[in-house]
Amino acid sequence: MILQEQEAIDKAVEAITADMGALWILIAGILVFFMQAGFTLVEVGFTRSKNSGNIIMKNLMDLAVGSVMFWAVGYGIMYGSGLVGGGFFRTSPADQGYFFFSADDWYNLFFQTVFCATAATIVSGAIAGRTKFSTYLIFSAMMTTLIYPISGSWYWPFDDDAWLNTAGFIDFAGSSVVHAVGGGAALVAAIMVGPRIGKYVDGKAQAIPGHNMMFGALGVFILWLGWFGFNGGSQLAWGGDDTIAASSVIINTNLAAAIGAIGALFFTWAKYGKADISMTLNGALAGLVGITAGCGAVSAWGALAIGLICGIVVVLSIEFIDKKLKIDDPVGAISVHGTCGFLGTALIGFFALDGGLFYGGGAKLLWVQTYGSLSYILWAALATFVVLFILKKTIGLRVSEKEEVEGLDIHEHGIEAYPEHISQDK
Amino acid sequence: MILQEQEAIDKAVEAITADMGALWILIAGILVFFMQAGFTLVEVGFTRSKNSGNIIMKNLMDLAVGSVMFWAVGYGIMYGSGLVGGGFFRTSPADQGYFFFSADDWYNLFFQTVFCATAATIVSGAIAGRTKFSTYLIFSAMMTTLIYPISGSWYWPFDDDAWLNTAGFIDFAGSSVVHAVGGGAALVAAIMVGPRIGKYVDGKAQAIPGHNMMFGALGVFILWLGWFGFNGGSQLAWGGDDTIAASSVIINTNLAAAIGAIGALFFTWAKYGKADISMTLNGALAGLVGITAGCGAVSAWGALAIGLICGIVVVLSIEFIDKKLKIDDPVGAISVHGTCGFLGTALIGFFALDGGLFYGGGAKLLWVQTYGSLSYILWAALATFVVLFILKKTIGLRVSEKEEVEGLDIHEHGIEAYPEHISQDK
Amino acid sequence: MILQEQEAIDKAVEAITADMGALWILIAGILVFFMQAGFTLVEVGFTRSKNSGNIIMKNLMDLAVGSVMFWAVGYGIMYGSGLVGGGFFRTSPADQGYFFFSADDWYNLFFQTVFCATAATIVSGAIAGRTKFSTYLIFSAMMTTLIYPISGSWYWPFDDDAWLNTAGFIDFAGSSVVHAVGGGAALVAAIMVGPRIGKYVDGKAQAIPGHNMMFGALGVFILWLGWFGFNGGSQLAWGGDDTIAASSVIINTNLAAAIGAIGALFFTWAKYGKADISMTLNGALAGLVGITAGCGAVSAWGALAIGLICGIVVVLSIEFIDKKLKIDDPVGAISVHGTCGFLGTALIGFFALDGGLFYGGGAKLLWVQTYGSLSYILWAALATFVVLFILKKTIGLRVSEKEEVEGLDIHEHGIEAYPEHISQDK
Repeated sequence: MILQEQEAIDKAVEAITADMGALWILIAGILVFFMQAGFTLVEVGFTRSKNSGNIIMKNLMDLAVGSVMFWAVGYGIMYGSGLVGGGFFRTSPADQGYFFFSADDWYNLFFQTVFCATAATIVSGAIAGRTKFSTYLIFSAMMTTLIYPISGSWYWPFDDDAWLNTAGFIDFAGSSVVHAVGGGAALVAAIMVGPRIGKYVDGKAQAIPGHNMMFGALGVFILWLGWFGFNGGSQLAWGGDDTIAASSVIINTNLAAAIGAIGALFFTWAKYGKADISMTLNGALAGLVGITAGCGAVSAWGALAIGLICGIVVVLSIEFIDKKLKIDDPVGAISVHGTCGFLGTALIGFFALDGGLFYGGGAKLLWVQTYGSLSYILWAALATFVVLFILKKTIGLRVSEKEEVEGLDIHEHGIEAYPEHISQDK
Repeated sequence: MILQEQEAIDKAVEAITADMGALWILIAGILVFFMQAGFTLVEVGFTRSKNSGNIIMKNLMDLAVGSVMFWAVGYGIMYGSGLVGGGFFRTSPADQGYFFFSADDWYNLFFQTVFCATAATIVSGAIAGRTKFSTYLIFSAMMTTLIYPISGSWYWPFDDDAWLNTAGFIDFAGSSVVHAVGGGAALVAAIMVGPRIGKYVDGKAQAIPGHNMMFGALGVFILWLGWFGFNGGSQLAWGGDDTIAASSVIINTNLAAAIGAIGALFFTWAKYGKADISMTLNGALAGLVGITAGCGAVSAWGALAIGLICGIVVVLSIEFIDKKLKIDDPVGAISVHGTCGFLGTALIGFFALDGGLFYGGGAKLLWVQTYGSLSYILWAALATFVVLFILKKTIGLRVSEKEEVEGLDIHEHGIEAYPEHISQDK
Repeated sequence: MILQEQEAIDKAVEAITADMGALWILIAGILVFFMQAGFTLVEVGFTRSKNSGNIIMKNLMDLAVGSVMFWAVGYGIMYGSGLVGGGFFRTSPADQGYFFFSADDWYNLFFQTVFCATAATIVSGAIAGRTKFSTYLIFSAMMTTLIYPISGSWYWPFDDDAWLNTAGFIDFAGSSVVHAVGGGAALVAAIMVGPRIGKYVDGKAQAIPGHNMMFGALGVFILWLGWFGFNGGSQLAWGGDDTIAASSVIINTNLAAAIGAIGALFFTWAKYGKADISMTLNGALAGLVGITAGCGAVSAWGALAIGLICGIVVVLSIEFIDKKLKIDDPVGAISVHGTCGFLGTALIGFFALDGGLFYGGGAKLLWVQTYGSLSYILWAALATFVVLFILKKTIGLRVSEKEEVEGLDIHEHGIEAYPEHISQDK
């Protein structure tokens, strides 16, 4: 066969493979979009009913504001070709079409937009039940416009200008880039906003049970579902080796979630004598967050190890933050996304098939993973501190005591979420 | 290279591209299918609990009856090759396999079936809480068998026999063909059925709050999700330029929904002093309905403009219909689907990149868009009037006063939706 | 054109078609995964609130434990190349990578894993509200490790070593392989565990209504959605004829569900004078279970016939099992999955376009379908009996009377699912 013909065939195959990849990225993005509903359900279900409407609004606005701001500004800062501050963040010439996006690869914009909205939404849960709605809106806008895109630019353009990329950092789908950023921001936000009234009495943590376990569980199922898009879509391609790789990512994701739930179940069962429902659900999420960085770099065994460690550590982390540090995080967002985001990133240093300590690599990868992940957490914590400090000194962070006790729904939104419902918790 | 070889390659590419397109259409159809759950949740959440079971049954039957009737009759009337009444609707020779569908492109039938079920479901919300179940079933069957397919045939076969197609009308995914048809039918149905007992006291509209805001919000998230299939799938192809076009449609859809929610939020916040939850949720839906016609014809800026206008107008429309016209539409279906369906179609006359007034086109497109959309609304209104008039004179439209007050669930279905629940609204 | 070039083109087409098929299988698997949320919602909604948390945990663990065990053991037993006991089940040499799966076709493992989890979940509903959580966990692990994979190996490897495959048995997506196995196990489990306290008073069946019809309905919508992946994905390919076949499967699935719901609606309406909601929802599920075996073998007319029969029979079966046999199956799982799984498999003997009695075939296919389906039910029943008998003699099957009356949530999990909720059913 003449070379020319093979070239014509290869070109056709390449074009179709790119189209298949775009289809997978778009569908994966649609799955990730649905995670917004999952986060809302988890946060609503795991908190009291008097703030349900407020939680709905916060999560909806993370998505709405994030979609507009990431299109307008965030994408250009994260993926632009020009560097600012020696690679601290990026900019983009107008003809690149990255600010107020107008390039051709809309499916990429869509996929990155829903990731960005996820990072913002994580914070919502940690400060549920006492934060001013206007304050939250401004903070959420800052997350999607600046905080997430700036640190995202350090790695995900996957080019030589991304310092963590050149350092050999591995974070396939964002244990650090998305989740630890959300978790670090959540930690600082929860400290600055302070605990809910009645959470700590005489220095002792009080349990404030959520109002609807089915909403919480449905949220976890939807998040688990969406995570197949989150991790699988991060292959950013389909066809040939990418088909195998993306499918393997899906299995690793599923196994880590499964063993995370199993680990949390048996750990709490042994510890409390009861098979704890919300901890088991959080165990599944912990496994998912943990495997997000390494799902493309470890074997199924590695995924099981990472998921199991995260499923157990998340329980300890939630208790430590709640009872020792006395930081009020109603849904455990700091532990699920922050602790397990860091852990999942760092554990790649042990479990990576290529370069992991347990597979004959040295300590180099572990070191890169550790400082890379900490860089994300520190950045998110610092940036969150600055934004919330300014907001605290201007419009304030918290609602009034009366508003908090009677519920944000009535005062911020003039409505009850379940107006026919007679509660024993009023 | 010899021409023959290039032809062989092109033929292979064409076949695979068609298969990729079919895959996208099918998956998009599955997403649209899920919108039925979204409509049910919105309608249940935004109304009182005593009619929840009835609402579930209506929406389930829209889908069930619509699936059978559109397969049997509707598809042939809408897409057949033979004209009836000079193009008023269509017919199909038996060997075409369009009535009692038996052709090969089952994915197209599926995609069109779930669109048809959507049109029927819109009406359900506007007449919730007082309509006889048997009456509703017959009306729903008429919608999916005749009303929607007849007017659908005026445009969506996209051929020279479709008068609105030859007129240059643009309605990419059905702001008019689906939503304004549903909205026009909903308007007439709500007027003919009359308001719920207690809705208007001494000529003043009373608020009747829904019973579960989380159901309503979950419904909106699911609808937003499904709309990516609704609009993106309406590209009816994938690969090459279609990949870019369909992805751009997804971004336009997402931006319009986002800005619709933001617009409704700030508009109601400024107006009432409270960040209104149900209006914000309706703002997202308004943006989605509005962009449905033009998502393939406008830029991202145009999508934002259309979404913002719809997000604000829907609030004014809901108030106008409720307080001035005194038409009882429990979930705002007339405004969301009717008003914004018309508006979204008409605004293409301004914002279309090709032919829009703001982009150097004349008034011609605006004129076509306006009378095209009005044709759909008028047809749906008229047809609905005829069907409901006959039903009124025969089996009646409304349940008895006792049944309405005590709830349709008990009387029509012999059950309560939440039998353990003690309500303060009985 | 020279032969060599056509071969190069064919090879490229084949590779891309395989990739498209893998994409469809993976996405279909993701849809099937979501069915776990659907099963949970149906079971929670159709039972009392005091056991909701326990039901969530059971369904979550079916998925979690099933995912790990099927990866580790189940897949190798079901799809291995080596026969054990003359084809009673399979084994796999280590280098095949089927035990502790490490082969390349991860998408196949994923698709089969979510099917396996489905079979386990079916049993959960039939023994809701009185079974010990630890007992359930062990049983569920046995289902996904051994019971389902062993009988699955009799047919689904589709090779000459699968005795039901060589016999000409048809079960496209698992009316028998999945649903009747789940239903047969559910029957034995419900008998052995015994009825809930208060279910039979003086030998008369008492209605114990579920607590949240919207959860039940949302579950059915999600199951219907997921079934497009369950049946459509079972084509195990996409492209060319497979595109047509898989799309036709989707339509058959949708029509059967639709007419199943319609059939159950009118049948109960005529019988009880009320349009029964839970029976109508079960009618849709019955149609789905029934068409699962034959969706690739019958016409749309056949799908309508099978769906209608199943939609009516499921009502009779639920009543018979409840009132005559006095077996307490809170959600009707035995009838939906067992009765209709058998019926759907057997009816192929009449309606198969190739070999069905009504299409000129003899009684042979009907005979194979009947004994094939019965083999699955008998196997599942027998294996379940052995496992539960051992569990009964060791750790016991039921919770104490006090635990059952007060609710499994408080006693097994130390929590209420809706702690703010005041119930009239305590």
